[in-house]
Amino acid sequence: MSRLLLNCDIGESFGNWTLGLDAEVMPFIDCANVACGFHAGDPSIMRKTVSLAFQLGVQVGAHPAYQDLAGFGRRSMAYTPQEIQDLLHYQIGALDGICRAQGGRVSYVKPHGAMYNDMMAKPEQLRAVIEAVAAYGELPLMLMATRDNSAAQALGDEYGVTLWFEAFADRAYDSNGHLVSRQLPGAVHHEAEKIIEQALTISRGGPLTASDGSALHLQANTLCVHGDNASSVAAVQRIREALTLQ
Amino acid sequence: MSRLLLNCDIGESFGNWTLGLDAEVMPFIDCANVACGFHAGDPSIMRKTVSLAFQLGVQVGAHPAYQDLAGFGRRSMAYTPQEIQDLLHYQIGALDGICRAQGGRVSYVKPHGAMYNDMMAKPEQLRAVIEAVAAYGELPLMLMATRDNSAAQALGDEYGVTLWFEAFADRAYDSNGHLVSRQLPGAVHHEAEKIIEQALTISRGGPLTASDGSALHLQANTLCVHGDNASSVAAVQRIREALTLQ
Amino acid sequence: MSRLLLNCDIGESFGNWTLGLDAEVMPFIDCANVACGFHAGDPSIMRKTVSLAFQLGVQVGAHPAYQDLAGFGRRSMAYTPQEIQDLLHYQIGALDGICRAQGGRVSYVKPHGAMYNDMMAKPEQLRAVIEAVAAYGELPLMLMATRDNSAAQALGDEYGVTLWFEAFADRAYDSNGHLVSRQLPGAVHHEAEKIIEQALTISRGGPLTASDGSALHLQANTLCVHGDNASSVAAVQRIREALTLQ
Amino acid sequence: MSRLLLNCDIGESFGNWTLGLDAEVMPFIDCANVACGFHAGDPSIMRKTVSLAFQLGVQVGAHPAYQDLAGFGRRSMAYTPQEIQDLLHYQIGALDGICRAQGGRVSYVKPHGAMYNDMMAKPEQLRAVIEAVAAYGELPLMLMATRDNSAAQALGDEYGVTLWFEAFADRAYDSNGHLVSRQLPGAVHHEAEKIIEQALTISRGGPLTASDGSALHLQANTLCVHGDNASSVAAVQRIREALTLQ
Repeated sequence: MSRLLLNCDIGESFGNWTLGLDAEVMPFIDCANVACGFHAGDPSIMRKTVSLAFQLGVQVGAHPAYQDLAGFGRRSMAYTPQEIQDLLHYQIGALDGICRAQGGRVSYVKPHGAMYNDMMAKPEQLRAVIEAVAAYGELPLMLMATRDNSAAQALGDEYGVTLWFEAFADRAYDSNGHLVSRQLPGAVHHEAEKIIEQALTISRGGPLTASDGSALHLQANTLCVHGDNASSVAAVQRIREALTLQ
Repeated sequence: MSRLLLNCDIGESFGNWTLGLDAEVMPFIDCANVACGFHAGDPSIMRKTVSLAFQLGVQVGAHPAYQDLAGFGRRSMAYTPQEIQDLLHYQIGALDGICRAQGGRVSYVKPHGAMYNDMMAKPEQLRAVIEAVAAYGELPLMLMATRDNSAAQALGDEYGVTLWFEAFADRAYDSNGHLVSRQLPGAVHHEAEKIIEQALTISRGGPLTASDGSALHLQANTLCVHGDNASSVAAVQRIREALTLQ
Repeated sequence: MSRLLLNCDIGESFGNWTLGLDAEVMPFIDCANVACGFHAGDPSIMRKTVSLAFQLGVQVGAHPAYQDLAGFGRRSMAYTPQEIQDLLHYQIGALDGICRAQGGRVSYVKPHGAMYNDMMAKPEQLRAVIEAVAAYGELPLMLMATRDNSAAQALGDEYGVTLWFEAFADRAYDSNGHLVSRQLPGAVHHEAEKIIEQALTISRGGPLTASDGSALHLQANTLCVHGDNASSVAAVQRIREALTLQ
Repeated sequence: MSRLLLNCDIGESFGNWTLGLDAEVMPFIDCANVACGFHAGDPSIMRKTVSLAFQLGVQVGAHPAYQDLAGFGRRSMAYTPQEIQDLLHYQIGALDGICRAQGGRVSYVKPHGAMYNDMMAKPEQLRAVIEAVAAYGELPLMLMATRDNSAAQALGDEYGVTLWFEAFADRAYDSNGHLVSRQLPGAVHHEAEKIIEQALTISRGGPLTASDGSALHLQANTLCVHGDNASSVAAVQRIREALTLQ
């Protein structure tokens, strides 16, 4: 991957409820993280989402989650490592089944919400996720780039799983390369110029300025972008153009 | 398939609830119809079920259902043909994901409960199911043998889907080759001798004696057996022995 | 009830998904049909909805449904009469529990979607609903006014349940007082003037002009209005004003 | 309450799945903790359970849980205090709705599984539960007796909620009056004599011998018993007889 790929959570509607501007943002992204039914997405939503992605040549990633539809997969839940592997195999497979029927396949895995956060916070859960992805076979895992990716990379190497590290153009980082809490001022960038500048800096390998003023270098393969509303979609379009011109 | 294969609904536990004598009946069957999470089965139950089947060389079939956990998939629901296809792709894929992680694959599809009954009763739903199975790729579909399988067979041929017709050794048939309603006397055979005799008759291609006294020839590839309780498991063992000696 | 009351489906969001302009339409309605968690609404959404209704002096009605979140309660499901009663008691009670904690109570019951349609189509289901409402105690049941309400009224009288008949200002009726199918042209009125005129006609006791040109008199206590979007909310405001001035 | 009341988790079946010997144990208990649909129990199961309890004069308690059917409510989930209150009002109300239709009412509240454990471990969650029970109105809360009940009692007094403290006859206690982990040897008593002796000791106000050999006095109003299997039911019968003779 030479250019920084753009990944975006997609297919987060459910039944009669619509969420996100999927059709609007899809033309500007490379990788669609498609909800698999446990936090969002139902089989019919998934089919429509995958169909659109394939039409536009966008890679489909499985975006599995804890089973918590009412909480949108954002509440931490006390699963065992084995249960997490089972959740992953079920959801990756379900999306892969939808993809097969649309003439394609799942291309990578990115856990959602609390499953993602817990994976980044707990080494044993990261191991469970990587082991599960390895057992499914052939798929890269998308996870968060931090100051030092080496522990994650060692686990990926141990299981033969390719890791795609992602960074954020619209969020402030602390000196460890973790996101500054949304509770704190300045955690989220709202100005398009600042977001695009950070995207380009990440693309060049840095350095970003962390919240304590230190220089932060992130090794990232992909940038997480958002299709929640018209302004975020506009930002994605501008990021895509800036990265392409770079 | 020279010998009549034995298929059995398996993996119908859920979370903390156990149903069926899976471990006891598994050694005597050929094909395990594994619940896929919509009427029974959760990802961890599915993994344990598939693991046991693979250890014993039993083929794993997807047993997809309407999304109705409280109703065990037995209530008819007004899905569109497209929604039924989506349900199938999701659930077949989910089980296939579990199978991949256990080193195997799904081998066939048999709809469950109301989805099965509606498929047999409504030609447009049978078409939707066959089309869905074809789109997933390569899997046979298990459905009910009746007096005349030709309409179903024509649909299977149209989509290039292999059909496995199943018969029942413990149920009375009417002259059309439909099961006599459980509400009627004599609908279910309880004596092991009668069950085994009917299994052997089906295996030889008949004729059975229908409820109106007429002769009924069923063309069946597989026999549906049950692992609900100790006596049904004992019957399965005896049927297996009788068919093997035949 | 001297003035025709306005009832509206409310609280149809779920978890992270928002549906309907509840805050915008609530000031103009009399009766809020609040989703009870089976087709929409979760306990937190329900609390927010009930709290807003009570602040504005709007009556809270239970809007129970079949258990089908993915289908928004719009798919018919083969429940037994006893199961329907159980569904009703559970959901009415759940909303009543939320209401109690907000200092009020449920004021009436209006089934949702397929449960409503099946109740109007099948006398045995209407009986089950009325019996369930009677057993809960003291609550009126909202159902559809047709040309002849006498059969429903007789059932209501049998169980001592007050019936509130509702009519629609934005839908065409056939000569039996049933709604013209949305599949047919002219089934839905889109012009505000026509909607308000029909509301006033219903309020006066008619006659409406049915789809075959015949005169239709509906005995209605309440009018069903919609808060889906800005134009439907605007229509509700105008209907409210017109009925008040009348 | 002069005699120590016996409370038991009841109604933990779901749909097609049966769990527990409810009919067998019900005659020997005073208080049935009835599952409310979020970890077990569906509306029809709840109706059957409540009906049996009322026939036998057993008090019906709401046994609400986190929304995690696959995990039987045993996995901790990161709910906010407000969400926990909403869960409680919904589930208490739902069971109360079922009770009303059977001619009775909910008599008390006992949280289930992880909701219970988190309530005992986190003061802010205990406060949320007590506040929720107070807002519902008039119901006692059942919670765990420990060496020192005073902090819980102060919270109960603050909100005007009666607390019923429960103890266990079949579990070893540590010196703080917490249950010894099931991971440790001796955590669960299996001999009926020992269980009955501990029940009588608790009934007299102690002292029990804690795991470190110290004397432990528990102030308990009720004893938690189990109807999982034939031997636990037999133990409940003997405990009931012993307490009655005392």
